[in-house]
Amino acid sequence: MNTLIVYTHPNHNSLNYSFLEAVQNGLKKNHKQHDIQVLDLYEEDFDPRLQFNETKRRRDMHVEPSMDKYRAQINWAEQIVYIYPIWWGRPPAMLLGYFDKLFSTNFAYKSKGKFATEGLIKNKSVIFISTMKGPTNYPLFLMNNAHKALMKRAVFKFIGFKKFKFFEFGSMESTEGKQQKALSKIENYFAVA
Amino acid sequence: MNTLIVYTHPNHNSLNYSFLEAVQNGLKKNHKQHDIQVLDLYEEDFDPRLQFNETKRRRDMHVEPSMDKYRAQINWAEQIVYIYPIWWGRPPAMLLGYFDKLFSTNFAYKSKGKFATEGLIKNKSVIFISTMKGPTNYPLFLMNNAHKALMKRAVFKFIGFKKFKFFEFGSMESTEGKQQKALSKIENYFAVA
Repeated sequence: MNTLIVYTHPNHNSLNYSFLEAVQNGLKKNHKQHDIQVLDLYEEDFDPRLQFNETKRRRDMHVEPSMDKYRAQINWAEQIVYIYPIWWGRPPAMLLGYFDKLFSTNFAYKSKGKFATEGLIKNKSVIFISTMKGPTNYPLFLMNNAHKALMKRAVFKFIGFKKFKFFEFGSMESTEGKQQKALSKIENYFAVA
Repeated sequence: MNTLIVYTHPNHNSLNYSFLEAVQNGLKKNHKQHDIQVLDLYEEDFDPRLQFNETKRRRDMHVEPSMDKYRAQINWAEQIVYIYPIWWGRPPAMLLGYFDKLFSTNFAYKSKGKFATEGLIKNKSVIFISTMKGPTNYPLFLMNNAHKALMKRAVFKFIGFKKFKFFEFGSMESTEGKQQKALSKIENYFAVA
């Protein structure tokens, strides 16, 4: 089983980084053979600004050389894990810009007739691990669950994924005990996943 | 009336740029005196990656020198207009990263007691002009209106705004006539707004 972990937080001395370690520790205990690649978007100095114009066409993004490496990681992976904080009700711009540039037509999806599309990234599963300050019912009720809608319906379902799992950890500014419990939950999940 | 227009599209030869011109043309016809500033995030080469760590603290973002100019624009404006395409159900990462960096604690909001916050950007109005391929009922019904929830509830209401106006133009890949009608609507709106 090939697992790609995409980590998006500017600081390695953070709760999000502890989640990255928890996922890796869990996978190492997993009796299935897991090959792991980690993509650390900030460490990588990834440029999240999708650029296009008359000479550099958006329709050619699926063969854009600077994105070769990231497409190869997706093709390689059978399971993809995203770890990120929730800022303003959604992931950091860094991660969303990675989607803007990576999930291009004819790599992630293609047109099918005049109005329909077909997702091209098949037979993979995706797991989202997010942390936020404040309780998780705030985005759920007051924001119509916008975070999940954006990640699942607007992106991953559209590009062909059928298996999704969300771990949303709220009130993470609070006690160490609560963080430790969340980290153990993640490590245990990946130890048997 | 001071109007700040924030334009977020990589290509000036685009429908979005025509909306920028329509807003400006409308404001010029407006009988109220309108002073206009345009922030073109791509032209500006704005870096949308919020960075922080042990030495560069997130809590100091409200006095980050590289953001002085952008804070001054917000303080100057009485009306702010955002023009952008909808990609993956929400604005481009470029614009969201501008929010990540700009709307910091003690500039855009402050803590009030243990759980409450208070928006600090008061007595301004905001207008969102967005374009998308496909009909606008797709994000409305299938995505729980995530775009509006993200912009209004998650960001602008939180930081103190009380007046919001959304123009969402769908199926914009279609005929010139439809685009022209949308552009006229915007020009007319700003001519009397």
